[in-house]
Amino acid sequence: MQKKLIALAVAGLVSVPAFAQSNVTIYGRLDAGLFNKDEIGTDGKEHAVTRVDSSGWTTSRLGFKGAENLGNGLQALFQVETKLVNDDDTGLRGQARDTFVGLAGGFGAVLLGRLSSPLNSWLADFDHAEGAPYFKVTNVGQGFLKDAVFETRADNTIAYATPNMGGFQAIAYYSFNLMAPELAPSSEEIRVGGVGFRYTAGGLDAFYTYNNAAKAAEIDNHSLGLSYDFGVAKIMGTYLLTDFDTNADSKQYSLGVQVPVGAGVISAGFGHEQNLGGVRDNDQDTWALTYKHNLSKRTFLYAGYQRQDPDGGIARDTYGVGVAHQF
Amino acid sequence: MQKKLIALAVAGLVSVPAFAQSNVTIYGRLDAGLFNKDEIGTDGKEHAVTRVDSSGWTTSRLGFKGAENLGNGLQALFQVETKLVNDDDTGLRGQARDTFVGLAGGFGAVLLGRLSSPLNSWLADFDHAEGAPYFKVTNVGQGFLKDAVFETRADNTIAYATPNMGGFQAIAYYSFNLMAPELAPSSEEIRVGGVGFRYTAGGLDAFYTYNNAAKAAEIDNHSLGLSYDFGVAKIMGTYLLTDFDTNADSKQYSLGVQVPVGAGVISAGFGHEQNLGGVRDNDQDTWALTYKHNLSKRTFLYAGYQRQDPDGGIARDTYGVGVAHQF
Amino acid sequence: MQKKLIALAVAGLVSVPAFAQSNVTIYGRLDAGLFNKDEIGTDGKEHAVTRVDSSGWTTSRLGFKGAENLGNGLQALFQVETKLVNDDDTGLRGQARDTFVGLAGGFGAVLLGRLSSPLNSWLADFDHAEGAPYFKVTNVGQGFLKDAVFETRADNTIAYATPNMGGFQAIAYYSFNLMAPELAPSSEEIRVGGVGFRYTAGGLDAFYTYNNAAKAAEIDNHSLGLSYDFGVAKIMGTYLLTDFDTNADSKQYSLGVQVPVGAGVISAGFGHEQNLGGVRDNDQDTWALTYKHNLSKRTFLYAGYQRQDPDGGIARDTYGVGVAHQF
Repeated sequence: MQKKLIALAVAGLVSVPAFAQSNVTIYGRLDAGLFNKDEIGTDGKEHAVTRVDSSGWTTSRLGFKGAENLGNGLQALFQVETKLVNDDDTGLRGQARDTFVGLAGGFGAVLLGRLSSPLNSWLADFDHAEGAPYFKVTNVGQGFLKDAVFETRADNTIAYATPNMGGFQAIAYYSFNLMAPELAPSSEEIRVGGVGFRYTAGGLDAFYTYNNAAKAAEIDNHSLGLSYDFGVAKIMGTYLLTDFDTNADSKQYSLGVQVPVGAGVISAGFGHEQNLGGVRDNDQDTWALTYKHNLSKRTFLYAGYQRQDPDGGIARDTYGVGVAHQF
Repeated sequence: MQKKLIALAVAGLVSVPAFAQSNVTIYGRLDAGLFNKDEIGTDGKEHAVTRVDSSGWTTSRLGFKGAENLGNGLQALFQVETKLVNDDDTGLRGQARDTFVGLAGGFGAVLLGRLSSPLNSWLADFDHAEGAPYFKVTNVGQGFLKDAVFETRADNTIAYATPNMGGFQAIAYYSFNLMAPELAPSSEEIRVGGVGFRYTAGGLDAFYTYNNAAKAAEIDNHSLGLSYDFGVAKIMGTYLLTDFDTNADSKQYSLGVQVPVGAGVISAGFGHEQNLGGVRDNDQDTWALTYKHNLSKRTFLYAGYQRQDPDGGIARDTYGVGVAHQF
Repeated sequence: MQKKLIALAVAGLVSVPAFAQSNVTIYGRLDAGLFNKDEIGTDGKEHAVTRVDSSGWTTSRLGFKGAENLGNGLQALFQVETKLVNDDDTGLRGQARDTFVGLAGGFGAVLLGRLSSPLNSWLADFDHAEGAPYFKVTNVGQGFLKDAVFETRADNTIAYATPNMGGFQAIAYYSFNLMAPELAPSSEEIRVGGVGFRYTAGGLDAFYTYNNAAKAAEIDNHSLGLSYDFGVAKIMGTYLLTDFDTNADSKQYSLGVQVPVGAGVISAGFGHEQNLGGVRDNDQDTWALTYKHNLSKRTFLYAGYQRQDPDGGIARDTYGVGVAHQF
C-alpha cells in the first residue's frame, strides 16, 4: 500500500524492495600511474613532464549493462558505458563509449546506438601492449594519419554481428552520421560503414576489416591483424592501408611479441606509420617495451617505455608505472 | 582491521563487504531506432533525413533510487535520474530528470528537488502513443505554444502528494525558480506552481491540473485528460488551455485510441493546437498511427508514423521502427 | 554459447548472469531543504532569497567503490565519486569528488587520482555543524582567504596513508598539478603537497596538517583541530594559519559545541577569519546555531541559522530546514 502511494505520488517514482536488486550489471576499470612524458610545450620546446595520469594502460571507464531472455533464444541487450578521467574533476562527464540497445539470437546480434567499428574493437588485441594508450605501437599517430575515423566509435550506428561459427565471425556496421551534433541535412555529415571478419582457432587469431567514409571525398581503409600464440611467446602484426581520394594515402604496420614470465608478461613492439604522397614528411617509428604483472584476474601493475620517433621531428619518450583494476 | 585502516585512510573511503550490496536500485530505459524525418535544413528547405536516433518512443534514461523504512509508517525516499542520449557521445552528461529526496507516510509524500509538474507526469498516459517523442499528438508544438513551461520538470521545487484515497489523488507543487542557473534576485526567476487531481477507477482514468507561472506577466494553464478502457479498445482525450496576460492564448486538444492485438497494441491519434489572438497563424494538426509489439514486460518493438501539418506551413512526416528496453 | 556470441559480437560487450551482481558498491547522499539566504544581487544590494536548494547540510553525491582481496593482506581499492546538484538539471554532470585507484595492506594505503587533502578530509569533523555548507563556521570565506587551495581536492595526486596505529594515523600527499586542464609545461601548474597527523583516543580527537603550494610564489599552511567529547557535550576548536610569500597572510579560528538531546544534536559555533597584512579589511565573524534530528542512522532532518558578519561589510543571514538521506 505504501508502495502504491509512492508509485502514484510521482509517476514511476519509487519501488520499495525488501532488498535492492536490479537487472543491471555495473562494471568498469580504473587505471592510474606515475608517468614521465616528453611533451611539446606552449613555448614550442620539448619538456619532460612528470605527472599522475589516468588510463596509461587501459582506458578508465564505468558501465551499466544487462540482458533479458525473451524466449526462443532471443535476447534483449543494452549497454551504457562512459569514459572516466580519474585524475581530475571530470567525474561522470566523460565521453560515451559503446552505448546501445539491441536484440541477439541464433541469427547473431543487431545493435543500435554508438558503436565501435570492428577495427576499433579488434586492433588492441594485436598490439604488444593491448593497445595501451601510453605504450601501444598500433595507430599511434592517429591525428596526422586520419585513420582515427576508422579506429573509433561511431554515432547513429546500426551493426550486425554473426554468431561465432566455429571460430569465425563477421560484423557489418553503418553510421548515418559519424559524430554529433546532428545538424539538419548538411555537408557536415560523415557516413561511415564497413565490414570485419575474424577467425580464431587454437593459437591463431586473424582479422580483416574494410571501412569506407564518405563526406566531401571518399576514404577507403583496409586493415589486417594476425597473431599466433606459441605458448612460450605470442607474436603479432598489423597492417593498415588508408586510401584518400586526394592521394595523400597512409599506411602503417606493427610487430609485437609477448612473453609470459611467471605472473607477468614482458612485451615489445615496433610500429611504423607513413603518409604516402603527402607534402609533409609524416613517417614515424614507434618503439615500446612493457611489463604487466598480474596481481589477480582483475588487478595488475604495469611498467612501460615508449619512444615515438618522427622522421625529421623531435623524438618523444614516455615511461612510467601504474596500477589498473577491473570491476 | 583492514577495513578500519581504509576507512581512516581517506575520510569515508571504502568499506569492504564480503559481497557488494547497496540500498540503491538502478533502473533505466534504452530506446533506439531507424527513422526517416522531414527536417528544415540550414538551407531553409525540407529534407527527408534517415538516421539512427535514440528515444523515438520513450526517453532513454538511467536512474538510481531507494527508500528506507524509518518506522511508524514513515519512509525516506530518493531518486537521481538522468536522460541518456544513446546514439552519440553524450554518455552520462544528459540533463537531469526527476531528482529529489523526501519523506512519505500516511499523510502522503513531501519531495524536494527537481520535479515533474503533475501535467508532465500524467499527460503521456492520455496520449495514444504514450507520449512517444516522435509519434505523440499531445503538446507537440511546445515551442510556439509556450506550454512547455507547464509540461516540464521544475528546478528548486517542493511538492506534496496525497496518498491514494480510493483511486483519487492530489498533488501540489511550487518551484521557487523554474530553471537554473540561479541568479541573485533578478527578474529572470520564474516562479511556477500548481495543483493536479487524478481519479482512476475500473476502466476510467481522468485528471485536471491547474498551473500558474509568474515572471514579468502571469500565465495560467488548465488541463484535462480523460480515458476509458473498454477492453477491446481504450479511448482517450486531452484539452489544454493556456491563458497569457498578453492575450496570445493557446489551446490544444487531442484524441486517441489504442486497440490490443495479440502481444501488441495498434494506436491512432489526432491533435490540434492553436494560438488564439496570436499575430502568427500557429494552428497545427498532428496525425499519428503506431504499433507497439511487446516482446516481454520490459522489451518492445515499435513502428510509427506521425504527420505534423501546420496551417499554411510545411507538413513534416516522421516514420520509423525501433526497440525499447527497460531495466 | 549465447554468451560467447555476444562477447565476440562487440569486444567486451555483455555477460548474461542469471542474477545481476557486481563488485561495486553504489552509495551516496541527497540533501535538500528550504532556505532563506541573504545574497548580494545583480543590483549590488542585499536581498533575502527563499529557495529550495540542495546540499545545505551535507554535499549531495553519488559514488561507486569497491575492493578486492589480492591475498597476503593486500587489497586493490577504487572509488568514483561525483557531486550531485539535486535541485536543478545538472544530473550526473557534477564535479568529481575523491576518485582513485590504489593498493592497501599492512603497510598502509597508496592511492592515485583526485584526492582530498588531509585538511579537507578532517576539518569538517571539528566543525560544530559537521562542515555543513550553509551553517559551518570553519573556513567559511574560502574565496578571499585563499585557503581553498588546501581545503580542497587535488588532481594528479598520489597519497600515502599509514595504518591506524593505536589511534594514530599519518597521511602524506603530493599533487603534480592541482587543477585540470593539464597544460603542457607552463607556469599555470600548481604543485601542492603536505602531511597530516591525527590522533583519536577515548573522547579525544586531534589533528595537525601542513600544506605547501608552489606556483609563482610559495604558500605554507599550518592547521590544527582539537575536540573532546565529554558525553553530555562535545567541544571543539580549529586554528588555520596560511603564510603567503607576499605577506598577505591569513589566519582563522573556530569554536564549537555539540549537545546531544534525545535523537538529536543541538550545536553552536563561532568562527573568525582575518587576512593579516592585506590591503582590504577582510576580517569576518561567523555565528551559527543548528539542530540535527536523526530519523535513522541514514536519514536526518536539520534546521539551522548562520550569520556571516564581515567587518565593515554587509552581514548576511542564512536560515532554513532540510532533510538528508544517505544510501
